[in-house]
Amino acid sequence: MRMTSIKIFEKPKLKNPVLIEGLPGVGNIGRVTAGYLISELGAKKFAHLYSEHFFPFVMLHDNYEIKLLKNEFFYVKAKKPGQRDLILLVGDCQSLSPNGHYDVTESILGFCETMGVKEIITIGGLATGELEGTPKVLGSVTDKALIKKYKGAGIEFTAGEKVGYIVGAAGLLLGLGSERGMGGLCLLGETSGFPIVTDPKAAEVVLNSLTKILKLKVNMNKLDQRVKEMERFIKRVESLQKKAIMQIAKEEKAPVSEKEQLRYIG
Amino acid sequence: MRMTSIKIFEKPKLKNPVLIEGLPGVGNIGRVTAGYLISELGAKKFAHLYSEHFFPFVMLHDNYEIKLLKNEFFYVKAKKPGQRDLILLVGDCQSLSPNGHYDVTESILGFCETMGVKEIITIGGLATGELEGTPKVLGSVTDKALIKKYKGAGIEFTAGEKVGYIVGAAGLLLGLGSERGMGGLCLLGETSGFPIVTDPKAAEVVLNSLTKILKLKVNMNKLDQRVKEMERFIKRVESLQKKAIMQIAKEEKAPVSEKEQLRYIG
Amino acid sequence: MRMTSIKIFEKPKLKNPVLIEGLPGVGNIGRVTAGYLISELGAKKFAHLYSEHFFPFVMLHDNYEIKLLKNEFFYVKAKKPGQRDLILLVGDCQSLSPNGHYDVTESILGFCETMGVKEIITIGGLATGELEGTPKVLGSVTDKALIKKYKGAGIEFTAGEKVGYIVGAAGLLLGLGSERGMGGLCLLGETSGFPIVTDPKAAEVVLNSLTKILKLKVNMNKLDQRVKEMERFIKRVESLQKKAIMQIAKEEKAPVSEKEQLRYIG
Amino acid sequence: MRMTSIKIFEKPKLKNPVLIEGLPGVGNIGRVTAGYLISELGAKKFAHLYSEHFFPFVMLHDNYEIKLLKNEFFYVKAKKPGQRDLILLVGDCQSLSPNGHYDVTESILGFCETMGVKEIITIGGLATGELEGTPKVLGSVTDKALIKKYKGAGIEFTAGEKVGYIVGAAGLLLGLGSERGMGGLCLLGETSGFPIVTDPKAAEVVLNSLTKILKLKVNMNKLDQRVKEMERFIKRVESLQKKAIMQIAKEEKAPVSEKEQLRYIG
Repeated sequence: MRMTSIKIFEKPKLKNPVLIEGLPGVGNIGRVTAGYLISELGAKKFAHLYSEHFFPFVMLHDNYEIKLLKNEFFYVKAKKPGQRDLILLVGDCQSLSPNGHYDVTESILGFCETMGVKEIITIGGLATGELEGTPKVLGSVTDKALIKKYKGAGIEFTAGEKVGYIVGAAGLLLGLGSERGMGGLCLLGETSGFPIVTDPKAAEVVLNSLTKILKLKVNMNKLDQRVKEMERFIKRVESLQKKAIMQIAKEEKAPVSEKEQLRYIG
Repeated sequence: MRMTSIKIFEKPKLKNPVLIEGLPGVGNIGRVTAGYLISELGAKKFAHLYSEHFFPFVMLHDNYEIKLLKNEFFYVKAKKPGQRDLILLVGDCQSLSPNGHYDVTESILGFCETMGVKEIITIGGLATGELEGTPKVLGSVTDKALIKKYKGAGIEFTAGEKVGYIVGAAGLLLGLGSERGMGGLCLLGETSGFPIVTDPKAAEVVLNSLTKILKLKVNMNKLDQRVKEMERFIKRVESLQKKAIMQIAKEEKAPVSEKEQLRYIG
Repeated sequence: MRMTSIKIFEKPKLKNPVLIEGLPGVGNIGRVTAGYLISELGAKKFAHLYSEHFFPFVMLHDNYEIKLLKNEFFYVKAKKPGQRDLILLVGDCQSLSPNGHYDVTESILGFCETMGVKEIITIGGLATGELEGTPKVLGSVTDKALIKKYKGAGIEFTAGEKVGYIVGAAGLLLGLGSERGMGGLCLLGETSGFPIVTDPKAAEVVLNSLTKILKLKVNMNKLDQRVKEMERFIKRVESLQKKAIMQIAKEEKAPVSEKEQLRYIG
Repeated sequence: MRMTSIKIFEKPKLKNPVLIEGLPGVGNIGRVTAGYLISELGAKKFAHLYSEHFFPFVMLHDNYEIKLLKNEFFYVKAKKPGQRDLILLVGDCQSLSPNGHYDVTESILGFCETMGVKEIITIGGLATGELEGTPKVLGSVTDKALIKKYKGAGIEFTAGEKVGYIVGAAGLLLGLGSERGMGGLCLLGETSGFPIVTDPKAAEVVLNSLTKILKLKVNMNKLDQRVKEMERFIKRVESLQKKAIMQIAKEEKAPVSEKEQLRYIG
C-alpha cells in the first residue's frame, strides 16, 4: 500500500457536486449529521478509503466479521431544482499521526477533484463546557466573499474568536482545498463536551443550517432514534480505539531505566 | 532499502495455496502453532522479509552469529487428496510503529498474491485473565458466507463480543487482504495471559481446529516438548526486545526541563 | 500532497538575491526583524509553502477565515547601488517533527536555488536568562572566510561558545545550503527569554547589523509599534499551537495500564 | 533531500577494501578506535553522508563555523603485502529514529557496494557495569565459518551470551550487509560504562585485535593523548545533543490536560 488508498466501486456522473464531510470528532456531530443525511436521502456508497495512518487493527462487526478501518464516500443526486448533487464523506476514524492528516486529506481532495467537486462543507463540534439553551452553529469560510453565500442559514461567523483553529479533516479539507481552487464552509455545532458521545441537539441545529444551505427537506422526526442507533456503534468504535491506543502506546513507550551510556550499544 | 523488502530463495509452484500466519503475539499461540506445523510437515523456507519498521538491532544467535530480524515464509505441498498447498509465515517480530503494520502487511500480501494465495488463516491469542478448563478457539472471518466453510472445526464465532478488534498482522492480513479479493479466517486461542510466554494448551486447541480445516494429520505428542524448546528462544527474543525498546525509548524521550522559549533556537 | 509543497504566484527576475530567513523562534526575533523589513521595504509576496510536517490544523483569521499554516516568500529589488535583491522568508510555524525540519529546509533551498540564491542570512534568538544593557548580536558563518565579509556590522562571532548549536531552519538552511554551494550568516540576537513573546530590543540590534550588511536605510521609528502589532498575532498563533499540541499529544499518548502480554493481540 | 544523501569528493580506486565502522556508541570505543587509525594511517576523507534522520540542528565549530551533522568516509590504501585497502566510517551521530537506522545503514551499504566492499568490521562497546582488570574484546560474525578467519586475534566469541543484540549501525551494517552478500565481524570492547565518555583502555584492546586482523602496525603511544583530545570534542557534541533532544522532546510532548472529547475538534 502507498500510504493512503481509495477504492472506487462506481463512478457516478455528478454535476458540480458539494462535498459534505462528517468524520469522527467532538460530539460526533459531523458523523451524526452526515449519517442522518445519508439515510434520509438514500445516498449510495461508491468508494472507500483506507490508510496506513489509521489504527493498525481491524474491527469485528456482528461478533465475527472482520472490517478494515475506512472512510466512506456516498453520493446522492439533486432531486429538485435549486438542489445540488452531494458527496457525503463519513468513516470510522481520522489519522493517528499529525502528518497523516495531511496525507489523508490530500487523497480525499485529489479524488473529489476528479469527481468535479469545487465546494466543500465540513462539519464539526466545538466543546464549550456546560451549555444552556439552544446550541449555536459557528461558521468559518475559505474566503470572506463566501459569507454572503452562506448567510441567512442561522450561522454565526465567530468561530475564530471562540476556538481559533480547526484540527484534522474538517479544517484541512478547506485549507488544502483552497490551494486547489476549492472553497467552502466549516460548520461547528456547540456541544457541552464530555461525557456525551454523540450530541443530537447540536446535530439538529447543524442539520437545520445545512439543509437550508443545500435547499433540502429532511424529516427530523427520526433524528433522536437514529442518533441512539449510531451512538451504540460509535461508542463501541471509540472504546476499541481507546483500548488499541493503550496497547500501541505500551509497545512504543516501554519504561526507561537503563543507564545513559547504553545509547548506542555496539 | 525501501521500507520493507522480501528476499526470495526459491519460487515453488504452488496450487491455490493457503497462507497460515503465525507471527509473535499474545501467548505466542500463532508462533507455536505455525512453528509446530512447519516442523511436523517438514515445510521448507523459501523467502524472508525484513523491514525498517522492525527494531533497529540484530540478534546474536548461538552467542556469536549476527541475525537480522525477519519474518520467514515456508511452504509445504499437499500430500493427500483434500489437502491444500500451504505457505506458513513465522518470524521474530512485528512492526514497531503503527503505520509499519500496514506497510509490512501490504508487502506480505503483494508477495502472496504472486504465489496465488486467495485464502488466509491467521492465528492469535486472546488474553482472558484467569482461565479454567479447556480454552476455546474463537473465529472471525472476512465474509459472513465463510462461516459455513469453517464450521464444524470447534470454532466459536464470538470473538467480536469478547475483544472487538484484532491488532497487527493477524487482523490486517485479513482486512487488507479483502481489498485484494483474498478471504479467510482468524483463529484466536483463549489464553490466561501474563505471565505465560507461550501457551501450549491454547496452541493445542488451535492446532486441532486448524488441522481439521486443512485436513491434516499431525501427531500432537511432540507439541509439549517442542513448545518448551521454542519457549527458550521466544523468551530470549522478547527479553532482548524489551531491553532494546527501553534503550530506544531513552534515546527519543530525554527529560524535558529547559525553558519554554527555547522552542526554536536560532 | 508530497510532503512539502511550494506554490508560486509570480516568478520575479532577481539578480543574485540574498535569502533572509525570519521564521518563528526564540523571542521571535527573526520573525519581527524580517516582518519589519517586509513592511518598510514594501516587499511583495510571490510564493508560499505548506507541509505535512506542520501542525494538522488550520487557523481562523478575523474570526471566520480559514488559513492553512504556511511559510511565505517575499521579494524586494535593490533600489540603490550597493544594495542587493532580497528574498524574505517568514511564516506561521516550523516543522513539528525532527525529520520534517530537513524536508522543509530542503524544499526551501531547492526553490531558492531556482531563484539564483547563493547567499543566505538567517535570524534567530539566543535565550540568555536575565539580560542587562544592550543585547549583543552573535554571528556564525558557513565558512571562516566569510567573517571578513560580515565584520564591522557589530556582530560578535562567539555564538558557538554560548550555545553550540542552532536548531531548525535558521541552522539547517545554512548547513544544508553549504552542501549546495550556498554560504552565509546566522544572526542570533540575545534575549532574556521567557516570558517575553517578542523582543523588540533584540530585534532592533539585529536589524542594525542586518541593514549595515545589506546597505539598507530603514526607519526604526515604527519598530516598537509594529512589534506590538505583530505580537498580538504571534501570541495568538503560539497559544493555538500550544492548545493543538496538547490535543495531538493526547491522541497519541493515551495512558498505558493494560497487561504486558497484550502486545500483539491476534 | 531524499532521506539520506551521500556526497562524494573523490572516488578512489580501492582493491577489495574492508569497511571499518566507528560511529558514536557506548564508551565511544568505535569512534576512538577508528579515529586513531585515521590519524595514525593518514587516511583521507573522500565522502560524507547526512540524513533527515539525524538531529535537526547544526553545530558551531570553533565558536562560529556552522557544520551539518555528518558521517564521514575515509580511505587508506594498503602499504605492505598482507594488508588491505581500508574505508573508515566515523561521524557525529547515528539516527534519531528507529527506522532511520535502517535507512542510513542501507545508504552506507549501497555506497560501499559501489566501492567494492565485501567485508565489514564494526566496532562498539559493551557496558558491563564495574570492570576490573583488562577489558575483553567480544566478537560476533555474520557467518559461523568466519570464526576461523578472525581467530587468534584475542577475540572471545561470546557476545551473545552477555548482551544478545547489537543496536544501530554496528549491528545493522552486518545484518543488512549479509543480505547483499557482505560478511564480517563486530568487535565489542568491554567498558565499565557510565560516567566514562570515552574509554581508552577498551579502545586499546579493540585496536590490538583489529590491527592483528588487518596486519597493521600502529604506534599506541599517542593513544591516551589522542583520546583526551577527541574526548573534549565528543563531550561537547554529546552535551549539545542532550540539550537538543530536550528541546525537541518539549516541542513534541507538551503536557496533556484538555478534556478527552477534544480529540478531533471540527
